[in-house]
Amino acid sequence: MQKRAKATRRSLLEAAAQLFAEQGYAGTSVNDISARSGRTSGAVYFHYASKEGIALAVVRDRFATWPQLTPAYADRAVPPVERLVALSYDIARALAEDPVTRAGARLWAERAVIDAPLPDPFALWTAAATRLLAEARLAGQVAAHVRPAATARALVRAFFGLCSLTEALEGAATVTDRLTDWWQLTLPSLRPAPGAHRPPGE
Amino acid sequence: MQKRAKATRRSLLEAAAQLFAEQGYAGTSVNDISARSGRTSGAVYFHYASKEGIALAVVRDRFATWPQLTPAYADRAVPPVERLVALSYDIARALAEDPVTRAGARLWAERAVIDAPLPDPFALWTAAATRLLAEARLAGQVAAHVRPAATARALVRAFFGLCSLTEALEGAATVTDRLTDWWQLTLPSLRPAPGAHRPPGE
Repeated sequence: MQKRAKATRRSLLEAAAQLFAEQGYAGTSVNDISARSGRTSGAVYFHYASKEGIALAVVRDRFATWPQLTPAYADRAVPPVERLVALSYDIARALAEDPVTRAGARLWAERAVIDAPLPDPFALWTAAATRLLAEARLAGQVAAHVRPAATARALVRAFFGLCSLTEALEGAATVTDRLTDWWQLTLPSLRPAPGAHRPPGE
Repeated sequence: MQKRAKATRRSLLEAAAQLFAEQGYAGTSVNDISARSGRTSGAVYFHYASKEGIALAVVRDRFATWPQLTPAYADRAVPPVERLVALSYDIARALAEDPVTRAGARLWAERAVIDAPLPDPFALWTAAATRLLAEARLAGQVAAHVRPAATARALVRAFFGLCSLTEALEGAATVTDRLTDWWQLTLPSLRPAPGAHRPPGE
């Protein structure tokens, strides 16, 4: 029974995410979610209380926690800056292809019309990037001027802006190429100075 | 008469921009624009044909052309990369304070609900940044791996994402500080190598 309830929640969430990604929040009704999932509207109200509730679950439980789920982030055999870069490509791909991630991004963009306060969906992304940069700093693998938290915050916001604007202006197929342009522009600043003992750059 | 028509268009546009910035596109009606501007609804329809028309004018005629208007961009006595940085702070300030610029950014974010195709509002920003980087490249003031058009495109998208997300997550007052973090992260990659004759980084 517990298992059945979980399966119902999951299928409602995924149907809702598809619809939010395709039609936006205002363009999606509880009836649409019921029809797409093959469950009753009563199931939506029982499991998520409202359309706001299911939108909040998409952002909070899936979009906001996404980086924790990627294997690229956890593999300690790979240098941390490489893991950060790999993670960014995984997220970019999910933003282009995965309905739940796409729904999260669209709901975030449309947050003004959602009658529920969304959590900061980038907090965990930024925490993950901060940990990777701190690890790289300890290992002497980043430049002295890199302050993990501030750098992670700037990287995550710039990265998300780059992906969103590229998709909007050129389509999802171009995102990976533009991400490569951006890393070419950003990685040299992260790397430690070749001669090493330079004073901190701030 | 021509002059009076211009004044009317301008006051309608500015009233509409204030409302779009405060309440969003869907939350603003032609009647609201008429009330805020002190003109008739007939004036809105006469000068802009529709609410879509006036939103389009805000984005196309003001938001999209904004960088052309800034003195920081035009002053040839200042090195081009410095002008680019100054321009970014001017735009960031306008995004935080100027109602027409704020309206442009919000309308762009809400473009899915506007029943008119908005132009790419970043094309002229990117062209301005490309010219500055090309000028810097000619003068040997940027690293060999900087390709003006690709770099400008990545910079503009990352910059706009950084400003929008920072305002959404932390409020407009923080944008300038976060922009400084971002430039500290980005400028070292733009600078030419200290020893000069490094091979191109691509």
